[in-house]
Amino acid sequence: MSRIAYRPLLSTKVTLAHGSGGVETEAIVENLIVKLVPEALRKTPGGVGLDALDDGAAIPVPGGYMVFTVDSYTVNPPFFPGGNIGSLAASGTINDLLMMGARPVAALDAIVVEEGFEVARLREITESLVKTLAENNVALIGGDFKVLPKGQLDKIVVTVAGIGFAKKLIVDTNLKPGDKIIVSGPIAEHGALILALQQGLEPKDLKSDAKPLTDLMLPLVEKYGDYIHAARDPTRGGLAMLLNDWAQSTGTVIVVEEEKIPVREPVRAYAEMLGVDPLTLASEGVAVLAVDPSKAEEVVEEMHRLGYKQASIIGEVRRAERHRGIVLLKSVTGGVRILEPPSGEIVPRIC
Amino acid sequence: MSRIAYRPLLSTKVTLAHGSGGVETEAIVENLIVKLVPEALRKTPGGVGLDALDDGAAIPVPGGYMVFTVDSYTVNPPFFPGGNIGSLAASGTINDLLMMGARPVAALDAIVVEEGFEVARLREITESLVKTLAENNVALIGGDFKVLPKGQLDKIVVTVAGIGFAKKLIVDTNLKPGDKIIVSGPIAEHGALILALQQGLEPKDLKSDAKPLTDLMLPLVEKYGDYIHAARDPTRGGLAMLLNDWAQSTGTVIVVEEEKIPVREPVRAYAEMLGVDPLTLASEGVAVLAVDPSKAEEVVEEMHRLGYKQASIIGEVRRAERHRGIVLLKSVTGGVRILEPPSGEIVPRIC
Repeated sequence: MSRIAYRPLLSTKVTLAHGSGGVETEAIVENLIVKLVPEALRKTPGGVGLDALDDGAAIPVPGGYMVFTVDSYTVNPPFFPGGNIGSLAASGTINDLLMMGARPVAALDAIVVEEGFEVARLREITESLVKTLAENNVALIGGDFKVLPKGQLDKIVVTVAGIGFAKKLIVDTNLKPGDKIIVSGPIAEHGALILALQQGLEPKDLKSDAKPLTDLMLPLVEKYGDYIHAARDPTRGGLAMLLNDWAQSTGTVIVVEEEKIPVREPVRAYAEMLGVDPLTLASEGVAVLAVDPSKAEEVVEEMHRLGYKQASIIGEVRRAERHRGIVLLKSVTGGVRILEPPSGEIVPRIC
Repeated sequence: MSRIAYRPLLSTKVTLAHGSGGVETEAIVENLIVKLVPEALRKTPGGVGLDALDDGAAIPVPGGYMVFTVDSYTVNPPFFPGGNIGSLAASGTINDLLMMGARPVAALDAIVVEEGFEVARLREITESLVKTLAENNVALIGGDFKVLPKGQLDKIVVTVAGIGFAKKLIVDTNLKPGDKIIVSGPIAEHGALILALQQGLEPKDLKSDAKPLTDLMLPLVEKYGDYIHAARDPTRGGLAMLLNDWAQSTGTVIVVEEEKIPVREPVRAYAEMLGVDPLTLASEGVAVLAVDPSKAEEVVEEMHRLGYKQASIIGEVRRAERHRGIVLLKSVTGGVRILEPPSGEIVPRIC
């Protein structure tokens, strides 16, 4: 089932909300991209493409699938506690491939930078990009470099295209009623930090979680690939967007227990101070999995062994009765509310 | 032989010249990217990667190679006679794949746009992008969409990653002494137009040549693949940069006859008025080939039959004697001068 509903575009100008990764982003992508592509050209035969709107796309090759992803990173500030736009771009690319069940193999970069940017700072960024790829055994096989005149770009945009190989794909529409929802660790770390920095705060107890999840996902996929029905990292739009995507695209209801979602206390405090729900804030080093109930506990234990000590089951997928494609949040007191997909301006230039 | 010489970076800030596609671009890419990547990770085993700095990269798969390219398009103005940034991005991506000997198969896009950009204008761009891909039977299988706050980006950056398949690669370092240099048509059309527009002129007799060369390259590669030793499109840096790249990377001397290079009269006139050598200006719908001398005439005739009426042999590759890696330009009067690779600011945001 495709979740493409072709929501109307309600404005004549592009707004920040169109880039926030919430419902407005889906609307503009559906209307200005997906809808325009002839159905036969939304994927290659036997592959995964635009209709899926998954972390990546896939093309069948003998023995499996080549998997592809491309993202433009615009994070502001480009240097932040825990990384910079280079390490973030490499991590995000690697994670998108991993979430498709693929082993990351190679990447190409395209950098657009403002005239006058310090060469030394640019080198820090490219060093981080290259180092993060190399540590994960990902080759950098090509790229592009452009400069915009002073004043025509605020600092830098780093785009990375990633290439991976999967024997078997994890396609999120395979999510099934009964599946347990697992998160690999505390959420919203990257989003809370960048939001705080953009507000001019100096958040000493916040740090970006941006990191490749290679050490988690490769062993998990190897051992439990058949039982991981869906996998995604909750970047723009956060856990709220991810779960709504999953529920909508499969026509299921996802029920999560609020107190089981790991959120570090300083993240919760900053989010509250800044008036943002941590469930809508980006993580850049967290995996969310939908796992067959027969193996869910075992997968969590394996995640603990792999060093992801706070991995936990936060909820489950249910067959829809009256309402299809919604996410329910159970509070510790037993109350239940609908977790809406985020909309409006969340945080600009978060990734 | 690698042409990577690691020229020193002479400035502490990024300059427009670093983005012009000339020698400064090579220097910054070599120093800030290539040099930092461990040699074993500059390509995948048996593939083509960073060392080649060709139009694209390649990874071997059973039966041939998957070919990849990524470029960020920043052209300003984004709408121009003959196309827009969307059709340009699609054409450039398709051409990069074709120049590697590949059949273009699929693409992914990443759009970064300024807050306040007209949705109708954005739709024109995405329509052109999608239409150009579809007309060339290239699937659009994924992408990304971001918005930068007003004032943080001048209009739009469109990045496209392309995926192709080649039974046999055209790797430009296979260029051989004796090869004839062929251009498919008049050069510098796109560059002259964009330069004129940026100078505030209204060049009625100029038009961008941006177009995919699928109808030229697929039949040529099918029929003459074994004889086409090198292929590239002369985009940033123009024919001058392309030929210098080839001469340097193979340690040969390339001799071209100035009067045989097709340049339309209005292009020549505007270039002269604006003080720029057309040989350094970008073409976005021209192929330059190095072809085995035994088949060069036949290839040119085939190009004429395919509709490229002005295709012609403009020169040849010679074994280097005293000087290696240079390009010589013979004038109609018999004089010979060295055609230097372009440097300095040529035209910002040309593609």
